[in-house]
Amino acid sequence: MTGSWVNSAEILGSDLPSELSGAGNRRSVLTGALREAISGGRLAPGTRLPPYRSLAADLGLARNTVADAYAELVAEGWLAARQGSGTRVAERAAPVAPARGARAPERAARPVHDLVQGRPDPAAFPRTAWLASARRALATAPDDAFGPGDPHGRLELRRALAGYLARVRGVRTAPERIVLCSGTAHGLRLLAEVVGGPWAAEEYGLPFHRGLLASHRVGTRAVGVDGDGARVGELTRRDRAVLLTPAHQFPTGGPLHPARRAAVVDWARSTGGLVVEDDYDGEFRYDRQPVGAVQGLDPEHVVLLGSVSKSLSPTLRIGWMVLPQRLVGPVVAAKGEREPFSSATEQLTLADFVDSGAYDRHVRRMRQRHRRRRDRLVAALAERAPHVRVTGIAAGLHAVVTLPPGTERSVVREAARQGLAVEGLADYRHPEATARGAATAYREATARGAATGCLEAAAHGRASAHEEATGGAGGARDGLVVGYATPAEHAYPEALEALCRVLPPG
Amino acid sequence: MTGSWVNSAEILGSDLPSELSGAGNRRSVLTGALREAISGGRLAPGTRLPPYRSLAADLGLARNTVADAYAELVAEGWLAARQGSGTRVAERAAPVAPARGARAPERAARPVHDLVQGRPDPAAFPRTAWLASARRALATAPDDAFGPGDPHGRLELRRALAGYLARVRGVRTAPERIVLCSGTAHGLRLLAEVVGGPWAAEEYGLPFHRGLLASHRVGTRAVGVDGDGARVGELTRRDRAVLLTPAHQFPTGGPLHPARRAAVVDWARSTGGLVVEDDYDGEFRYDRQPVGAVQGLDPEHVVLLGSVSKSLSPTLRIGWMVLPQRLVGPVVAAKGEREPFSSATEQLTLADFVDSGAYDRHVRRMRQRHRRRRDRLVAALAERAPHVRVTGIAAGLHAVVTLPPGTERSVVREAARQGLAVEGLADYRHPEATARGAATAYREATARGAATGCLEAAAHGRASAHEEATGGAGGARDGLVVGYATPAEHAYPEALEALCRVLPPG
Repeated sequence: MTGSWVNSAEILGSDLPSELSGAGNRRSVLTGALREAISGGRLAPGTRLPPYRSLAADLGLARNTVADAYAELVAEGWLAARQGSGTRVAERAAPVAPARGARAPERAARPVHDLVQGRPDPAAFPRTAWLASARRALATAPDDAFGPGDPHGRLELRRALAGYLARVRGVRTAPERIVLCSGTAHGLRLLAEVVGGPWAAEEYGLPFHRGLLASHRVGTRAVGVDGDGARVGELTRRDRAVLLTPAHQFPTGGPLHPARRAAVVDWARSTGGLVVEDDYDGEFRYDRQPVGAVQGLDPEHVVLLGSVSKSLSPTLRIGWMVLPQRLVGPVVAAKGEREPFSSATEQLTLADFVDSGAYDRHVRRMRQRHRRRRDRLVAALAERAPHVRVTGIAAGLHAVVTLPPGTERSVVREAARQGLAVEGLADYRHPEATARGAATAYREATARGAATGCLEAAAHGRASAHEEATGGAGGARDGLVVGYATPAEHAYPEALEALCRVLPPG
Repeated sequence: MTGSWVNSAEILGSDLPSELSGAGNRRSVLTGALREAISGGRLAPGTRLPPYRSLAADLGLARNTVADAYAELVAEGWLAARQGSGTRVAERAAPVAPARGARAPERAARPVHDLVQGRPDPAAFPRTAWLASARRALATAPDDAFGPGDPHGRLELRRALAGYLARVRGVRTAPERIVLCSGTAHGLRLLAEVVGGPWAAEEYGLPFHRGLLASHRVGTRAVGVDGDGARVGELTRRDRAVLLTPAHQFPTGGPLHPARRAAVVDWARSTGGLVVEDDYDGEFRYDRQPVGAVQGLDPEHVVLLGSVSKSLSPTLRIGWMVLPQRLVGPVVAAKGEREPFSSATEQLTLADFVDSGAYDRHVRRMRQRHRRRRDRLVAALAERAPHVRVTGIAAGLHAVVTLPPGTERSVVREAARQGLAVEGLADYRHPEATARGAATAYREATARGAATGCLEAAAHGRASAHEEATGGAGGARDGLVVGYATPAEHAYPEALEALCRVLPPG
């Protein structure tokens, strides 16, 4: 001890002098070491530090370096300097427990096989093409792209999407009517705020979406689902909006019947209600051309919600809302001047990705891949579980495997036990729908499905439409929702194997 | 007319046959043309289309192509096919007004000169370095980076930030305690949800933040601000949290005094309250080392919020919350499993940007640039308006120009008239604070500022601390908040000129 203060070794321990003699920023090394010594408890509150001249001499540092370090730590509250009594460790700077790693929120053990719907295989992300687009986008972006951002979203991407959606989904819109968002969930929240409740929703659908609406004080009333999609005849004047999945009823699998497309637009026109079209996998249809969006039938009464989450990656957080003109202003206002959410650099990258044709190529490649996987699923089930029906297979990233009544829960549980993540239809059922008689729903579904299915089959001249219409029916039935896009290529055969193992014997 | 149906020219107009003979997807050209003809009103509801064989022969297309196009449009509801009566335009598909461009939400005419605070010059975005980081990030990212995303945020970026913030801001944390978000606003919303109200907030601050908290049912009570920053002695047991800007009181400009840093941590420890540290421009300090974060004094009672919005670009939508351990789980839960918001590819790019030293280099370059701009501002005012005081200039992207009492409103209005966008202090004042007596506040501020300013100046041996302590005082006073980072380099001198023109004569 020199006088009444601690010496440099007590302050710094044994490691630091070497760093201090290096070429780096000595003051910041010294302040870091002092903070460490105080927070770690080596220097107790009240401990007197040597005058900066002494410490500077001890450490071979310039006086200013030490004086500045002291001043910095005084400003931060680690040290206290008082005229006449020197510099001391401040009373407040008691040691706190070092940061222990926080426990991550509870997670189930990672399953060995993953057939949960809704996720494209992350290994399929087109890194090279995406980077090429990023390069072009960053090279050509105007400066204002790096400014505060516009809640409407970059015009470049809205233009690219207006063209793409017209071409691929039959959407009729203009860039001014598209508002970019971070995904379908974000779009739903904005609509809940702007439109208010109550809404109608399909009796099968994402509970996440219903919960999200509920958290914005928008209750949802269940509308029946059968082989022709949602029974839109059940809509009333009370419903402010209806949330539909017309391209591929989620998760049961059929497209919304043409007559019902017309009927739902009629409902919207006559009641002022809004059709919210969740076009979640509209690009992935295998047996014929994609069914165009309902939005094209009446752009003033239908909002189309889409995103790249299924087609490219959910990690990009880019989605879009194609809006009736009257909703553009309110939605932009609800989004808020300061909350653009999606990164503008990524918006520009996606604009280039779409405009350069890379998006089309990627979707085409993915469509072939999903289709192959679907075919393998159907083949595996035909061979290993011929008594089981697979429906909803004409499109999308998942299929529904029908189970004998009363077995769903035990099959899902057994799957989990065997390390296979897969969900049951019950996970998607609206609580209201569960209350309805399962038998009635099933009777209705098959009766209507058979009739309209024939009509649709006649129009298309294809057997799959009939299969889909009758088989994709809803009601309260037992089944597994099998997502076939998720596993890596090498892991898919084993996942199928695991699925066949847990199915009940015929 | 062939029979009772329209002919191909009526359907397609004159332009399309050439596209149909091209190499592209003929079916999609045909369906597009048909949709266009129906939606544009060329084909009225009920119009009968030729049998697909006839149209195919007319257009020189394969029969299947036309049959598939019809089927697609039937499925979409544009056409109706009935056994025996052929294919007709559906009754529902009435023409709707073509999408007129929606009016963009009302915007004030763009000002000629922009000295609004809070926005870095977008032309300064480091495109090349950012792209280099994007390239490395995309090349090395594990596949799961393109999966559904983790609301906690990518570990790579949390690791990079833990190191960076420790080094540059004296933050003590671990990657597990950092939760990524889309910016400070997002962080505040999450904390409002998790912590609940009421909060205390500085009597000068962003109205946007107070409004955002209010929209989450968290009221804010005003705490006084003087030359030593927030008067944290006014905090009570009732306040669940206090929102502070300790590095550089926003917008008045002083750092929080060491004694108050200790006091606010004491308050948090004894009441269980939370200190929310908005570290919005902690990296930009010009006259001495940055004042370290209060968070380092007590990581269990302080949340630090930061983002790249000021340092890099607000367009990236990346921010961070450095959390006490007990809040990590609740914040991640509030963020929601499906709402990662910030793009993972951009998170990884930023991680590389930080780890590679590019972020440090950019901040250093920006610091020099901001400092030069600040010096020009001070010099211009000294020459052109020597009677005016400039304060809060030791740090940040803005300064406060004090105005004679009662003149602020007319100066801001005159500036707007002359095409200069600049905000007055009143824009930032808490409504509660306005109610207090301006004279009292001013007396208090100068009295306290003079005393503590001397102390701080003694500790630092620099005049600027004294200037800042007395001059950065709050209370209800008149002033302009001058953001000097926003204009492009070439536009800055003229913006300064415009500012000098509108200042009241001495």
